[in-house]
Amino acid sequence: MSNEVTRFRTGEDQQLTQRFAHRAELMQASEIRALFAVASRPEIVSLAGGMPNLSALPMEMMADVVDKLIKENGTEALQYGSGQGHPKLREQICDVMALEGIRAHPDDVIVTTGSQQALDLISRIFINPGDVVLVEAPSYVGALGTFKQYEANVVHVEMDENGLVPEALRAAIEAVRKTGQEIKFLYLIPNYQNPAGVLLPADRRTEILEICAAEKIFIVEDNPYGLLGFDRPSPNAMRAQDSENVIYLGSFSKTIAPGFRVGWALVPQSLKEKLVIAAESSILCPSNFTQLSISGYLADQPWRDQIASFCKLYKVRRDAMLESLEQYFPEGASWTKPGGGFYVWVTLPPEIDTTALMPKAIVAKVAYVPGTAFYADGFGSWSMRLSYCHPTPERIREGVRALGGVIRTEMENRAII
Amino acid sequence: MSNEVTRFRTGEDQQLTQRFAHRAELMQASEIRALFAVASRPEIVSLAGGMPNLSALPMEMMADVVDKLIKENGTEALQYGSGQGHPKLREQICDVMALEGIRAHPDDVIVTTGSQQALDLISRIFINPGDVVLVEAPSYVGALGTFKQYEANVVHVEMDENGLVPEALRAAIEAVRKTGQEIKFLYLIPNYQNPAGVLLPADRRTEILEICAAEKIFIVEDNPYGLLGFDRPSPNAMRAQDSENVIYLGSFSKTIAPGFRVGWALVPQSLKEKLVIAAESSILCPSNFTQLSISGYLADQPWRDQIASFCKLYKVRRDAMLESLEQYFPEGASWTKPGGGFYVWVTLPPEIDTTALMPKAIVAKVAYVPGTAFYADGFGSWSMRLSYCHPTPERIREGVRALGGVIRTEMENRAII
Repeated sequence: MSNEVTRFRTGEDQQLTQRFAHRAELMQASEIRALFAVASRPEIVSLAGGMPNLSALPMEMMADVVDKLIKENGTEALQYGSGQGHPKLREQICDVMALEGIRAHPDDVIVTTGSQQALDLISRIFINPGDVVLVEAPSYVGALGTFKQYEANVVHVEMDENGLVPEALRAAIEAVRKTGQEIKFLYLIPNYQNPAGVLLPADRRTEILEICAAEKIFIVEDNPYGLLGFDRPSPNAMRAQDSENVIYLGSFSKTIAPGFRVGWALVPQSLKEKLVIAAESSILCPSNFTQLSISGYLADQPWRDQIASFCKLYKVRRDAMLESLEQYFPEGASWTKPGGGFYVWVTLPPEIDTTALMPKAIVAKVAYVPGTAFYADGFGSWSMRLSYCHPTPERIREGVRALGGVIRTEMENRAII
Repeated sequence: MSNEVTRFRTGEDQQLTQRFAHRAELMQASEIRALFAVASRPEIVSLAGGMPNLSALPMEMMADVVDKLIKENGTEALQYGSGQGHPKLREQICDVMALEGIRAHPDDVIVTTGSQQALDLISRIFINPGDVVLVEAPSYVGALGTFKQYEANVVHVEMDENGLVPEALRAAIEAVRKTGQEIKFLYLIPNYQNPAGVLLPADRRTEILEICAAEKIFIVEDNPYGLLGFDRPSPNAMRAQDSENVIYLGSFSKTIAPGFRVGWALVPQSLKEKLVIAAESSILCPSNFTQLSISGYLADQPWRDQIASFCKLYKVRRDAMLESLEQYFPEGASWTKPGGGFYVWVTLPPEIDTTALMPKAIVAKVAYVPGTAFYADGFGSWSMRLSYCHPTPERIREGVRALGGVIRTEMENRAII
């Protein structure tokens, strides 16, 4: 027997990898992964990550909230909780959503481990292999990865500087339907979209809701950045207009802090039970400790003022980025002008491959995310996402200047300019 | 268009439920769910739940740890972290596992949102619909639910008072192989098993490892209770003997507190990358805040002494339960005698249906979990799980006395005694 054990351990045909389920083949590292390891080195100006800037977060206040929580309510905060999430926090989440015009009942809110988990669970509940999911072009890399793992056929729909183009949505639906495939839902980020930075205006929201209702396609509205408008409030959430046909995802990662991993889904009643069961199977219950920390912060601290401080901080960085893009990027490059959120989307001449350009940018001590990461179909090779959320304005200028130089040299080498 | 929208909202055939993926049919509420709502009423002695008893947790110390964490390292603790988990905590986890004979490298540890998430991700990576998963009879309800959602064919293997029976494992493997089905892995809880409370002795561990190695079946060793032995330390973990063929799951839920939702998987190298990708797709990253809270507690507090305090607290309750079972349960009932952990498994005469008995127990102000919850195949109708972890010894005696009365009456009515 012991010989058998030894043979087992060394035999190449006995690897765990040979036991993987079919779906494991779809679990591939994104191209951003390796990049982040490099981009996090201190000498590099990272315009790559989407990490919120916590320098404005009042840590003393936060420590007080958590200290009080443990001392006064520790046996609840550190215990297992409800699979749906803590009732008190679900009430407070309804107050937060009211700022974007949503009237909701706490019973319809499910607290998740960041809104990424909501994406995962919704995919699990709805996507059969081969089902079509419509997404913006480009779209959030984390959503694309999850849809892919559930073997969805991701179809991109054109955007412009005002977000998803309704006419393109109609055309995409028609084209997909002609192939006989089933469209499961439309996933979109209407506010300060990741990665494009654009905002979907109110009239387009209405038009898209009407198209989807008529075509019997439901909408997954992902809204982590809605309260981070710099100059004016965002239009009402799409969920505010339609409570039946929209699954709404929210998060405290960008308005408070991501380290708590607290997001939520607001869902039509018919979906709630399945979503809770899927959540319980996935993690039993979200952390009472992080939920009640957020809850205490919302109850005791001036969180609206704090969001205003974040907006001020990000606005200065957005301005630094747009000004330095204007100053340092060569003619032939264009970019979006975000009114909020974290991201600028840059489009270069089609001859420039932003993935191939990355090593040169790293040498010049600046990092970004190549555009293809935000497409399921290999498109986007001449675009890139720049984030301004984390570095100081000075570092942003330094990074954009360095990157502008790299791009200019590349364009000169290719005789584009 | 607006007519269409109205019709969409009221048309019964337009429900989201009709868009569910096939796998959503398998997401069904467990029978424990409705029960817990009733069992949590204060007048009921709940012997149903598996909630750790946090009365022994030093809340002042815990508050100090977290206060210090936020004040000194808040921008890291409240930020996004690594998908694999925080490097410092992964080192400390290796120290914890060393107590059960495991030598491991932090690179092979993946931090999860409770070990339930590890079960979910492992299922996702390995289980194709129809694959067989071998489990103890009975087994953990949360694992059964997850395996079912991934469309596994769960096959139970006989246990006795010393845990899984090696001969029964051989027979089960042979029987399954004859049907042509693929066995993906053996899932087991060697220490103070949930729900049976039994311990797998060292010699059986070795024998089961050898059987599985010879049969090329890997093992998922779930070990939340290993450090909660009351009278003597548990035998070394199975992973201590075999680093290639065992996926080990650990958790701080029972040794510190479940509200942090921090568990982990220790996996063979060939599995790590896929598991991290699956974890990122599921939740991006585990909470830095809860991980670093645990890390600070492990670094600064006498956590081994604290586990000893937990053991003392649970031992008193175990004794109260075993004594009162002896005193109040009628002849014809038998039960396991756990040396640690949270649970006693009671077997009644086969005429007694413990699910049907529940309403009578509730009237008598006591709750338990009916045995069928711990089987994938409807077996277990004359058994029940009693947990002694949470109530006071007095309440345990009160509950067991009431339950003994209910069972005695039922047996008299059925002329069993």
